[in-house]
Amino acid sequence: MSTILITGGTVVSATGRGAADVLIDGERIVAVLEPGSTVLGHDLRGSVDTVIDATGKYVIPGGIDAHTHMELPFGGTAAIDTFETGTIAAAWGGTTSIIDFAVQTAGQKVFDGLGAWHEKAAGNCAIDYGFHQIVGGVDDDSLDALPRLIDEGITSYKMFMAYPGVFYADDAQILRAMQVAAEHGLMTMMHAENGPAIDVLVAQLLAKGKTDPYYHGVARAWQMEEEATHRAIMLANLTGAPLYVVHVSAKQAVEQLAAARDIGQNVFGETCPQYLYLSLEEQLGAVSEKYGAFEGAKWVCSTPLRSRAEGHQDHMWQSLRTNDIQMVSTDHCPFCMKDQKELGLGDFSKIPNGIGSVEHRMDLMYQGVVTGQITLERWVEITSTTPARMFGLYGKKGVIAPGADADVVVYDPNGHTSIGMPVDDEGRPTGRKHHMNMDHAAWEGFEIDGKVDTVISRGSVVIRDDAFHGRAGHGQYLRRGLSQYLV
Amino acid sequence: MSTILITGGTVVSATGRGAADVLIDGERIVAVLEPGSTVLGHDLRGSVDTVIDATGKYVIPGGIDAHTHMELPFGGTAAIDTFETGTIAAAWGGTTSIIDFAVQTAGQKVFDGLGAWHEKAAGNCAIDYGFHQIVGGVDDDSLDALPRLIDEGITSYKMFMAYPGVFYADDAQILRAMQVAAEHGLMTMMHAENGPAIDVLVAQLLAKGKTDPYYHGVARAWQMEEEATHRAIMLANLTGAPLYVVHVSAKQAVEQLAAARDIGQNVFGETCPQYLYLSLEEQLGAVSEKYGAFEGAKWVCSTPLRSRAEGHQDHMWQSLRTNDIQMVSTDHCPFCMKDQKELGLGDFSKIPNGIGSVEHRMDLMYQGVVTGQITLERWVEITSTTPARMFGLYGKKGVIAPGADADVVVYDPNGHTSIGMPVDDEGRPTGRKHHMNMDHAAWEGFEIDGKVDTVISRGSVVIRDDAFHGRAGHGQYLRRGLSQYLV
Amino acid sequence: MSTILITGGTVVSATGRGAADVLIDGERIVAVLEPGSTVLGHDLRGSVDTVIDATGKYVIPGGIDAHTHMELPFGGTAAIDTFETGTIAAAWGGTTSIIDFAVQTAGQKVFDGLGAWHEKAAGNCAIDYGFHQIVGGVDDDSLDALPRLIDEGITSYKMFMAYPGVFYADDAQILRAMQVAAEHGLMTMMHAENGPAIDVLVAQLLAKGKTDPYYHGVARAWQMEEEATHRAIMLANLTGAPLYVVHVSAKQAVEQLAAARDIGQNVFGETCPQYLYLSLEEQLGAVSEKYGAFEGAKWVCSTPLRSRAEGHQDHMWQSLRTNDIQMVSTDHCPFCMKDQKELGLGDFSKIPNGIGSVEHRMDLMYQGVVTGQITLERWVEITSTTPARMFGLYGKKGVIAPGADADVVVYDPNGHTSIGMPVDDEGRPTGRKHHMNMDHAAWEGFEIDGKVDTVISRGSVVIRDDAFHGRAGHGQYLRRGLSQYLV
Amino acid sequence: MSTILITGGTVVSATGRGAADVLIDGERIVAVLEPGSTVLGHDLRGSVDTVIDATGKYVIPGGIDAHTHMELPFGGTAAIDTFETGTIAAAWGGTTSIIDFAVQTAGQKVFDGLGAWHEKAAGNCAIDYGFHQIVGGVDDDSLDALPRLIDEGITSYKMFMAYPGVFYADDAQILRAMQVAAEHGLMTMMHAENGPAIDVLVAQLLAKGKTDPYYHGVARAWQMEEEATHRAIMLANLTGAPLYVVHVSAKQAVEQLAAARDIGQNVFGETCPQYLYLSLEEQLGAVSEKYGAFEGAKWVCSTPLRSRAEGHQDHMWQSLRTNDIQMVSTDHCPFCMKDQKELGLGDFSKIPNGIGSVEHRMDLMYQGVVTGQITLERWVEITSTTPARMFGLYGKKGVIAPGADADVVVYDPNGHTSIGMPVDDEGRPTGRKHHMNMDHAAWEGFEIDGKVDTVISRGSVVIRDDAFHGRAGHGQYLRRGLSQYLV
Repeated sequence: MSTILITGGTVVSATGRGAADVLIDGERIVAVLEPGSTVLGHDLRGSVDTVIDATGKYVIPGGIDAHTHMELPFGGTAAIDTFETGTIAAAWGGTTSIIDFAVQTAGQKVFDGLGAWHEKAAGNCAIDYGFHQIVGGVDDDSLDALPRLIDEGITSYKMFMAYPGVFYADDAQILRAMQVAAEHGLMTMMHAENGPAIDVLVAQLLAKGKTDPYYHGVARAWQMEEEATHRAIMLANLTGAPLYVVHVSAKQAVEQLAAARDIGQNVFGETCPQYLYLSLEEQLGAVSEKYGAFEGAKWVCSTPLRSRAEGHQDHMWQSLRTNDIQMVSTDHCPFCMKDQKELGLGDFSKIPNGIGSVEHRMDLMYQGVVTGQITLERWVEITSTTPARMFGLYGKKGVIAPGADADVVVYDPNGHTSIGMPVDDEGRPTGRKHHMNMDHAAWEGFEIDGKVDTVISRGSVVIRDDAFHGRAGHGQYLRRGLSQYLV
Repeated sequence: MSTILITGGTVVSATGRGAADVLIDGERIVAVLEPGSTVLGHDLRGSVDTVIDATGKYVIPGGIDAHTHMELPFGGTAAIDTFETGTIAAAWGGTTSIIDFAVQTAGQKVFDGLGAWHEKAAGNCAIDYGFHQIVGGVDDDSLDALPRLIDEGITSYKMFMAYPGVFYADDAQILRAMQVAAEHGLMTMMHAENGPAIDVLVAQLLAKGKTDPYYHGVARAWQMEEEATHRAIMLANLTGAPLYVVHVSAKQAVEQLAAARDIGQNVFGETCPQYLYLSLEEQLGAVSEKYGAFEGAKWVCSTPLRSRAEGHQDHMWQSLRTNDIQMVSTDHCPFCMKDQKELGLGDFSKIPNGIGSVEHRMDLMYQGVVTGQITLERWVEITSTTPARMFGLYGKKGVIAPGADADVVVYDPNGHTSIGMPVDDEGRPTGRKHHMNMDHAAWEGFEIDGKVDTVISRGSVVIRDDAFHGRAGHGQYLRRGLSQYLV
Repeated sequence: MSTILITGGTVVSATGRGAADVLIDGERIVAVLEPGSTVLGHDLRGSVDTVIDATGKYVIPGGIDAHTHMELPFGGTAAIDTFETGTIAAAWGGTTSIIDFAVQTAGQKVFDGLGAWHEKAAGNCAIDYGFHQIVGGVDDDSLDALPRLIDEGITSYKMFMAYPGVFYADDAQILRAMQVAAEHGLMTMMHAENGPAIDVLVAQLLAKGKTDPYYHGVARAWQMEEEATHRAIMLANLTGAPLYVVHVSAKQAVEQLAAARDIGQNVFGETCPQYLYLSLEEQLGAVSEKYGAFEGAKWVCSTPLRSRAEGHQDHMWQSLRTNDIQMVSTDHCPFCMKDQKELGLGDFSKIPNGIGSVEHRMDLMYQGVVTGQITLERWVEITSTTPARMFGLYGKKGVIAPGADADVVVYDPNGHTSIGMPVDDEGRPTGRKHHMNMDHAAWEGFEIDGKVDTVISRGSVVIRDDAFHGRAGHGQYLRRGLSQYLV
Repeated sequence: MSTILITGGTVVSATGRGAADVLIDGERIVAVLEPGSTVLGHDLRGSVDTVIDATGKYVIPGGIDAHTHMELPFGGTAAIDTFETGTIAAAWGGTTSIIDFAVQTAGQKVFDGLGAWHEKAAGNCAIDYGFHQIVGGVDDDSLDALPRLIDEGITSYKMFMAYPGVFYADDAQILRAMQVAAEHGLMTMMHAENGPAIDVLVAQLLAKGKTDPYYHGVARAWQMEEEATHRAIMLANLTGAPLYVVHVSAKQAVEQLAAARDIGQNVFGETCPQYLYLSLEEQLGAVSEKYGAFEGAKWVCSTPLRSRAEGHQDHMWQSLRTNDIQMVSTDHCPFCMKDQKELGLGDFSKIPNGIGSVEHRMDLMYQGVVTGQITLERWVEITSTTPARMFGLYGKKGVIAPGADADVVVYDPNGHTSIGMPVDDEGRPTGRKHHMNMDHAAWEGFEIDGKVDTVISRGSVVIRDDAFHGRAGHGQYLRRGLSQYLV
């Protein structure tokens, strides 16, 4: 076991910042010290294996991406990142934990679904990983399994108000599941869109020949998200279940969350970088030589991008500031254009839903600090501390404190990051690319006024000097406790 | 300079808790360590002057009471606690910093008023102290002085929408002051009650012979607080000035704050223990042998106690949870019944306004943890971390972290605290009493399921083994920075 | 054709009142005149067949009960009032028009359902009657029929978010129906309760042995009404369909309506007397010698009675004043205790849902005038003028004006009405009873400080001198136009 | 006394429309009849002095402009319309009643102020007129006079939260006045702008050389209106006084009214055509050859025009539909550019505040019917019926009903009205102009798809065939009762 001393940096927490040195011994942080690293006369610098000079840089708890879908089967294909490629990409981007979704489908045993995900992930992850459980079939059997997930370190499960015939749970099912969840303290995660109504709109649009990716967003109107969000809140109100709404994109949905939170209900909302930066108008305008208007398929995700003219993006940034939205995950669910997104050529409803962002979340949100949308402390809070608290990891993750896992990122505010897969003048790839498996960059051209400098995962330096020093298999499974964020 | 090691405790922050040891060297925390206090093989326990065993106890940042009025002249008398007695009482109760209000009155120079307060406090405080500046006379001269207060470490100033003829500022004055404050980053603190309208109601009640203390609360109707709160918010909205409303008691005022916060305005609200625990109905019922219905004078404060039937107290606890109210101060302004409160016999409007609570705030709020109103982390947040952030002290105060002042409280959840000045069967004082100068206990009979165990102020143990080990003069003046809590 | 002159009364409209005489010629009002009934020197009093002296009384447009269920099959039995008994009872109570619900069930043709209702009603009604169309099976066929209903004088149709397996429409069906309705201007009426979730709660309560009528209200929690109301509003928002929510009982549902109305959406709410006067607590306390706790079955209706402690009733009266609720219907759906309500002995879910009130609506709402809850004008508005406007009858009904049908009620504010079926000291029926077919009086013991004096239906006196002078078959079918209440 | 029969028209009320004939005998409507004007066989057409054929036209109650300022001294000059010119102009525009403001200034006796206004108006008005009472000096004496105004037929009085040193009432004064008003049922009218704060902004703008008319609107920011509106509402809430806020222009002020109305408070709001049609941006763009940017002075009024980009105008139309705003008056206060508006050349604060619209209100609001903003019925309601009810005139005014004053307008939806004072190609006046005394047309260029056809005032035809047939002195003083619009 080696020791690392991070010196000279500014340690940033959710509540403030200060000059401090961080001592790592093995896999854990063992001390946070005054700058100078001298304790009662002992100068520690000479006693450690590695000293990392963080002068002029921020030292923050490693990012936690609480919403990823590695290798998720969807729409006749599967998300293109494996747990290996996805977690390596995450590490490159300063994320040291992911919480992925194990899937139970209707008719399947919950623990069988979970077992399958353990198999996919075990031994393949470069950083630590945990699971939420998707319950795609709510019945007596799966409800019986819910509380037993807690013993497995899974304290949150997800249902879908969308996708009838696939993951869809009706209100009777949701009510029953929430009752169980409330009794045992599980967090109910919800994909909140009115699927049955959306499917009507989808069919009508397709029947009219509206097949381009843009119509994906037209069909999934904000009313459909607002409605489902409200419905989930009311069912949670009735049952007393804590509720976490995933990938919130409509400002009206946020207003529903805010209203519930104002009366003290344990209701939470997550947004994703795409809902802060991208818009339906830009998707409409996304036209390429190769794909024409189908280029917008790269941004087909559910919930969809929203209209900038309607103000969703500005409102979402505001909600991040006001804590009406508590955290930012990626909903990382990457598909290549070729062979995957292409499945939806001529029928937007067949485009696999998802954007790949696991590598860019910390950078994209840091840019919000640069532009003044959020404070530095809030950046740490929404990307690490709150995710940890929300999903029962705090103490082990989400904080720079003795006893915590040594998941530490040194972030350089004077660095720069260009996102994308640029080509040279002849259109040949330059070689620089992201580390996700996708054949394109959903965030092509985004420039970040900061840079991930060093990433440490459980005491091991995994990113340093623009190189990956980690390994698949380093990442361990995270047994999570109950949410530490309830009021 | 001595060293202290606090071992075995649970360090609680605003975001979480964990087992950790705290090393103090001189006046500052120099390290937070894994339990065991061994750093790279060095066992620190043998190297420190003092080891404090906090096993089974909470280790928290010292309390910050951001609203006290020591020696305040008011209504023809003066608050009975000196900076010495008041800060000693504060220390007994786990509060290691106060922010008192220096007073400028109309016609006076701001810096003369400030100078007078420095004179009162300097050399007399047992714990650290800072100042807000009351601007009782807003004019060209005092507005000119406002930005220069920043150099003096005073980054917040207070105006009064109540008390015409005394501290009252009219809307034109408030607007002008907020413009200056917005430009320079000062926090505007506001006593938000519609004084001119209240004075009409007071005169009408007195004219009808309604002279008991209870009518103080009747005259200061919730509409008067709600209205002034809204007005202050709108003037802040227009000018861009951050606003901090003191001693919020009416739920409708909270709703005004919440609405402004929902749109991202930098508006904050403080409440006090009396608005969480006491009610107008109890004041009506407060009748003693000695004073009859005038007994209620002990609870005459402004804003007043509110009706429990109207639900203000429950709503205030909820607002503490939802962060619509961000912190709890005392508005400590103690007057004896004898000779002081008695000034209002036969005329409630002449009762000096104020309740003495500086000693009890940490205990009273901890009881909210015991009863499940707030979490342990929220207790630390509302009593220490947020006050520090709100008023530019964070880093130095409000956090257990290396580099911070060693203001630390060890709190025992297995201890017990009985508040009051009990008498024996013959009615003779038992000797046990609070440490404030008042001749009565406003919180008589309150029982707390916890106990302040040890209090350390800037590295000096001031409370330990139920004894005061500090001294007047230990406390230093706190030069504060700008608020660190803005969004 | 005979002529009637109503003299000396105070004509009350939705906007005001004034002394005026009303001249009826045949079936229509032909003139409204200054008191004295002299037109350009012609004294009309000698020229008419009948003079009705309304001195000291109110002359108002006949009541319109827009929500009745005569002979409705429900829960294995059928509502006990026929169109004959129900409309005679209505006439006794000052109601001169009803709008009943024709029923289409899943699999049935809409026009077959409608035809069946025409058969039940034709030739049997004592007052005029119209139909709304229940669409119990939303499919291509029934959607195709919807616009054709307009030609039949049916401009409103109803769907149910409750009663899965019976009338239930899912969100996809609702969306499709609303699209059609929006295109053609039909009013969508909605029973807004989350049936699938309620059925879970019902089953759970029954499984726990909670079988008394009271648990009907427990299962149908306000959250279930609020949720469905919001959902219907959002689907209406998406489609642009006008929406009318029937029998609103929960204050939170009203708040949803109010919020939608505040932004100008064409959303309307109806309440019923039971939600203004009765409560869940009273249902819990309803215990009789004969039935024990099952006595509460008389008040089993859906939506259910709400808790008075939660303030629904007070809020509903307020909403009537603020026009957040626009009108009052009865949802008249009468069942006898014997053989009908008794079906639910031992299982509240089998109690036929419904209360019989068609005879008492005008009186019960007038009592709100007496107690100061609403103004006299508002009484006329919510019982007649708005129902007429809402459902395309205004001009013909709902107003005292030339050209309107002569549906006129003379109401005596100095009269008195005791509701119920009183027994003498030996418990023998006194003979006085209501005119509905039920074997009990749901409004037993209600005392009204006013009295229906005279009722005229299309120019025929049907109630006068405490006697019924009408006849089954007088009532004609009302072909209604599109709503005249849209903004 | 002559008789008039209006035949063939469509009578429109606040609740609906229908074909009907109207019989006028002397000064009053004596009958409303079925078309054909035959009563029990008597054909009335041959028995009347005049038959007016209204075929294809609307027959509506004469307009009531509840907010005019004839001959008002203001800013060193006086409104240029006399009671004669102003009421003649009103008649041209279909307005048959005005309620003007009698003025009491500080130090003056209320009844002396009132007496002066009676002198100005008596014998000079072409249509009926009533008074509200401005109380510019709230003191014991004026408060004593308030209830005695009721005997004079004045049931509403106005205070100003703006104009310190002129009409301004502080909160103590407002509170006292509202207490008196609540006790006696008087309507409190409020100019709701925070004058003291606005005056600071005005002075600052002028000091910076921002002297153009546009800055009038900048200084009177929406926050200042919203704030004062809220304050007035809270003082009304405390005292129970009904409140009517005049000339509401900011959407945020409307939201305050709406929130108070949602809880059933008797709070009302009036807007004016300028806040529906004109904007601050247009004022900024108003530049003429003669006046340059000072051209915008023609639209200087208080409250000011609001920004279209901020959406105030759209929101105001919506509020008219939702009844969050109840009626439309003009705040007619006309000043010529020459010698009057010119007083503010180089200093916008010296521009007399006011726009002349009394002639155009009915037309301008009818255009809202044409464009679909409001219904035909709502047009009648907001221009006549509600003003009558609001200010205690209903029955006599505001309705087509027997017993009502024969104030009737025949409005031609096939006519056309061009507003303004057009010049020919050489710039010479064409002769066609409005009938107000101003030297310019504030509504220059507005085109209305409808036309005032005939205007009858108390039985006398005053406008017919594009000619004025009335006379100064025909108008009588209106003794008003208490408001008939309270809930």
